[in-house]
Amino acid sequence: MTAKVTTPTGTFSHDEREAVYRAIFERRDVRKNFLPDSIPEETLRRILMAAHHAGSVGYMQPWDFLIIQQTETKQAVKNLFVQANDDAALKYRGEKADLYRGLKLEGIQEAPINICVTCTRERGGPSVLGRATVPETDLYSTCCAIQNLWLAARAEGIGVGWVSILDYDALKEALGIPQPAWIIAYLCVGYVKGFADQPDLEKAGWRKRLPLEQLVHYERWGNRQENDIAREESLPPMVDRKG
Amino acid sequence: MTAKVTTPTGTFSHDEREAVYRAIFERRDVRKNFLPDSIPEETLRRILMAAHHAGSVGYMQPWDFLIIQQTETKQAVKNLFVQANDDAALKYRGEKADLYRGLKLEGIQEAPINICVTCTRERGGPSVLGRATVPETDLYSTCCAIQNLWLAARAEGIGVGWVSILDYDALKEALGIPQPAWIIAYLCVGYVKGFADQPDLEKAGWRKRLPLEQLVHYERWGNRQENDIAREESLPPMVDRKG
Repeated sequence: MTAKVTTPTGTFSHDEREAVYRAIFERRDVRKNFLPDSIPEETLRRILMAAHHAGSVGYMQPWDFLIIQQTETKQAVKNLFVQANDDAALKYRGEKADLYRGLKLEGIQEAPINICVTCTRERGGPSVLGRATVPETDLYSTCCAIQNLWLAARAEGIGVGWVSILDYDALKEALGIPQPAWIIAYLCVGYVKGFADQPDLEKAGWRKRLPLEQLVHYERWGNRQENDIAREESLPPMVDRKG
Repeated sequence: MTAKVTTPTGTFSHDEREAVYRAIFERRDVRKNFLPDSIPEETLRRILMAAHHAGSVGYMQPWDFLIIQQTETKQAVKNLFVQANDDAALKYRGEKADLYRGLKLEGIQEAPINICVTCTRERGGPSVLGRATVPETDLYSTCCAIQNLWLAARAEGIGVGWVSILDYDALKEALGIPQPAWIIAYLCVGYVKGFADQPDLEKAGWRKRLPLEQLVHYERWGNRQENDIAREESLPPMVDRKG
């Protein structure tokens, strides 16, 4: 291959690289302390444009964004959450049950904006390039778009919380979402007082972060390596691991 | 709720914010022009640490990373690609078929490192918080981790290409991946000569980028808004939309 490569985009400076890592390490799943301040249109547009610039299988761009701002719509969604959460709480016993009931797991009404992100599975026709082998890749692409939105929002000082304790079929009906579109995420979005230094569930003692070295394999599943790149001590100072 | 918010993380400066958008808009799905240069261990560790800092449903952290560097392993995977790609090519006719066969859709052997990213669906036990209603959320979390890796790699000058034209069952067998782990992505990873200014499939005329305003709805699916935030003219100068 001798294809000519255009390189309008050079390398990142140290500071630019660090800013990208900062967004990644300081992003949080936010469910409380939303401020009532409205998000300017151009800011909302920027974070949606960030989502829209994710890669997608066969350049399918299967995502849509439904922006919810009205109190009545939020109330309808909140009712769905309360139902689903009451059911979910029954799965835990004893201390874990108490802990669960004490967690704040959504910010539907407090967040000035909610965004429902969908994946329209038929977009791009019957033969989407690269999707014949793995039909779920359109869902995966949509998740990449959501992560773009999440990181862009963090850089804007905007918190995002992904609420999955919802009956997505009932939610589709409430929002008039047609059949070929799947709901992938329901996001609570708004400016926040600040971002916590740890994920909420870590702070609450629900679960701990796993050591990276447990999750890295070499050549075949289960093979570890002596000079394991995932060792704690090989961590460069640049990377801030708190939270 | 009167929970105290710690705010070790302040707001992003204009330059920091722009760096985050730069990574998002200049990220590419790379399948060619990989350089043979090896990736330093601390750099690889940083991009894996970025992946590991994605949010996950119930703090499940369901991902694993299998690092592939040996020629024989890559050859085995390449053989699987060739098979799957021959089958996929048969789906197109005429000009589209010629175009398809001319596309370079993987860089398995050229990239110094391949990373197979999996999702272990049983991690976190039978009752993962937030997953009762939407069992697929563990897959979605893993995709968010992949997008973190992709953006961190871009900031490091490292190209990443997601190869989905593979029989994932055969790939699991080739890499010794056990049953509860699902393969989500097979990534070709390496330094590159440069990043293209447009996605390959856009450049090749395969498909066009959709206008954002087609993908944004208000309050209910299909509702548009007069002062639509997705309008072209409301795009702030900061956002570079090329590519």
